[in-house]
Amino acid sequence: MSIVTIIGAGVMGSALCWPLADNNHTVRLVGTPLDDDIIRSLNETRLHPKHQRELPPFVQPYFVDDLPGALEGADLVVSGVSSFGVHWFASQAGRHFTSGTPVISVTKGLFDQPDGRLLTVPQAEDAWLPDGLKGKIPLHAIGGPCIAQELAARRHTGVVFCGQDARLLNWIAGLFRTEYYHVQTSTDPIGVETCAALKNAYAMGINLVVGEHEAKGPDGLANHFNPQAAFFAQSLVEMRKLVEWMGGDGNLVYQLPGAGDLYVTVFAGRTARLGRLLGKGYSFAEARLEMAGETLEAVEIINSAARAVTVLEKAGKANWQDYPLLRHMANLLQGIPSEIPWSRIG
Amino acid sequence: MSIVTIIGAGVMGSALCWPLADNNHTVRLVGTPLDDDIIRSLNETRLHPKHQRELPPFVQPYFVDDLPGALEGADLVVSGVSSFGVHWFASQAGRHFTSGTPVISVTKGLFDQPDGRLLTVPQAEDAWLPDGLKGKIPLHAIGGPCIAQELAARRHTGVVFCGQDARLLNWIAGLFRTEYYHVQTSTDPIGVETCAALKNAYAMGINLVVGEHEAKGPDGLANHFNPQAAFFAQSLVEMRKLVEWMGGDGNLVYQLPGAGDLYVTVFAGRTARLGRLLGKGYSFAEARLEMAGETLEAVEIINSAARAVTVLEKAGKANWQDYPLLRHMANLLQGIPSEIPWSRIG
Repeated sequence: MSIVTIIGAGVMGSALCWPLADNNHTVRLVGTPLDDDIIRSLNETRLHPKHQRELPPFVQPYFVDDLPGALEGADLVVSGVSSFGVHWFASQAGRHFTSGTPVISVTKGLFDQPDGRLLTVPQAEDAWLPDGLKGKIPLHAIGGPCIAQELAARRHTGVVFCGQDARLLNWIAGLFRTEYYHVQTSTDPIGVETCAALKNAYAMGINLVVGEHEAKGPDGLANHFNPQAAFFAQSLVEMRKLVEWMGGDGNLVYQLPGAGDLYVTVFAGRTARLGRLLGKGYSFAEARLEMAGETLEAVEIINSAARAVTVLEKAGKANWQDYPLLRHMANLLQGIPSEIPWSRIG
Repeated sequence: MSIVTIIGAGVMGSALCWPLADNNHTVRLVGTPLDDDIIRSLNETRLHPKHQRELPPFVQPYFVDDLPGALEGADLVVSGVSSFGVHWFASQAGRHFTSGTPVISVTKGLFDQPDGRLLTVPQAEDAWLPDGLKGKIPLHAIGGPCIAQELAARRHTGVVFCGQDARLLNWIAGLFRTEYYHVQTSTDPIGVETCAALKNAYAMGINLVVGEHEAKGPDGLANHFNPQAAFFAQSLVEMRKLVEWMGGDGNLVYQLPGAGDLYVTVFAGRTARLGRLLGKGYSFAEARLEMAGETLEAVEIINSAARAVTVLEKAGKANWQDYPLLRHMANLLQGIPSEIPWSRIG
């Protein structure tokens, strides 16, 4: 049995306790500086306030101040922070990491550089680790469709663990695999992580068409599957181009990290709601106000991807023509008048 | 303006009246021998009983007995029959076709041959046309995500018209294109039509996992997105192999004909219901009884594809290992004990 330290006690970080605890590992769940209320609740009642479930027995909650102790002797560190926490995770929590101890991140994000390059989560983590640890922490990530609450309910879930060293990756996957948590592995972290991030952006885009139809008023039909499906396919077409341009395997877009993860995220709370508000005609400022306090990772990912395409188009390496939906989404976030690109579908 | 004769007055055949009528074509809607009640209702009230909407003005309903007159002077014939009607459409209705007048079919199906080959709808139509017309009717088909009721509500819908002659295809697409009906074209009818058929089969497969979870009883969560998403991706992986083996472009699986169409069909009534019943543990005979009177195209498509893989495996040209979900579905239909292949996901 191994010792696994999860940093980030939000819904996704906590959900990973279930398969690890079911495999009898020692699991330490450390809150970030934003998670004190969650850790307090876990200490008092073992009830996770966002899951509304008790943690599995023996999972040990830690406040962020106790991070050094929580990392002592850990065989694996798991990052469950949001994309806004990646810098803190690598640069601050990272001070307490041990050279050679592997990390796996369930965080989704893309971080754009001045030269137009986009960094995936493991690349950004490596860039932001303390100098003495750069290149010395084997960094991995988790892609694929996983609603955290369903994992905590032990529903069947299929994901992809990615990293560069197949042996280490298989060892990590083995810590997590249960009869309900199905783990594939991939040595294409760029491809998997680009899909993992972009699916947030495009899940918002698909919901724009739901908002557009809702704004027209009722027409006797409850659903909007045709318009959603048209943009589901358009999303995968644009994602493939972006994944290949990042240097990943474009075929991932029809596998768990692409189509699989997009499928669950279209229906996910915050991203879907933002898309529907924008589709109904709310400005981004109005939608942001309506959703005050919510973490909107999709916004950062759309902006990063759009800035990258703009820089690269100037360098002759990309063409905005290939990304009508991404362009429309970026326009909406910047307050630039823009129409849903229906003409590009047919 | 052109004259377009639609044969088959069910929900999908009728739905195509909307874009054609909005483009001011002369539209003749001919019932099959099974559609007499629909045509009677249309003649009396113009209300389509399955759409619960009035047909657009000027669309002319015809009983099957008046087919020869309905075809007189037609510039295009549209098939809206079910996959069970393809033989009748080509061999019986086909007697009244005119050499050179193009046909486009919205029917989905795959028809297996003794040698293991599968025929797409246009190929089967050509095989079943009267001898004098074989090879003389330019045959086309429609793939992509389209719930008929949503098209009739003029919701945005993106589809793919396919055929071998790009010029003729573009002319046909132009008859249909409106501001809500977005038509792409493809000169890969094998690929598009293989996707169109297989998505029915796999939409049933994805719903097996919903039934499996429902049988376990409530666990506090309304949805089953994780398990569905895992099999959504598995479906696309298997579909790609089958499409390529048929000689089509595997990349269609992440475009409108594959992922797009699968996305709408997962939620579609009959196929979804059959999958959920089988997933709950009903035998196929029990499920068939529960759904008496329903047209279950998915069943024929699964059986045809499975027979083809079996014949081809014997010839060393295919491997059942590559199709765990198809094999599981075929087993269920044949009453062979079989488990949902979760182990193949991770």
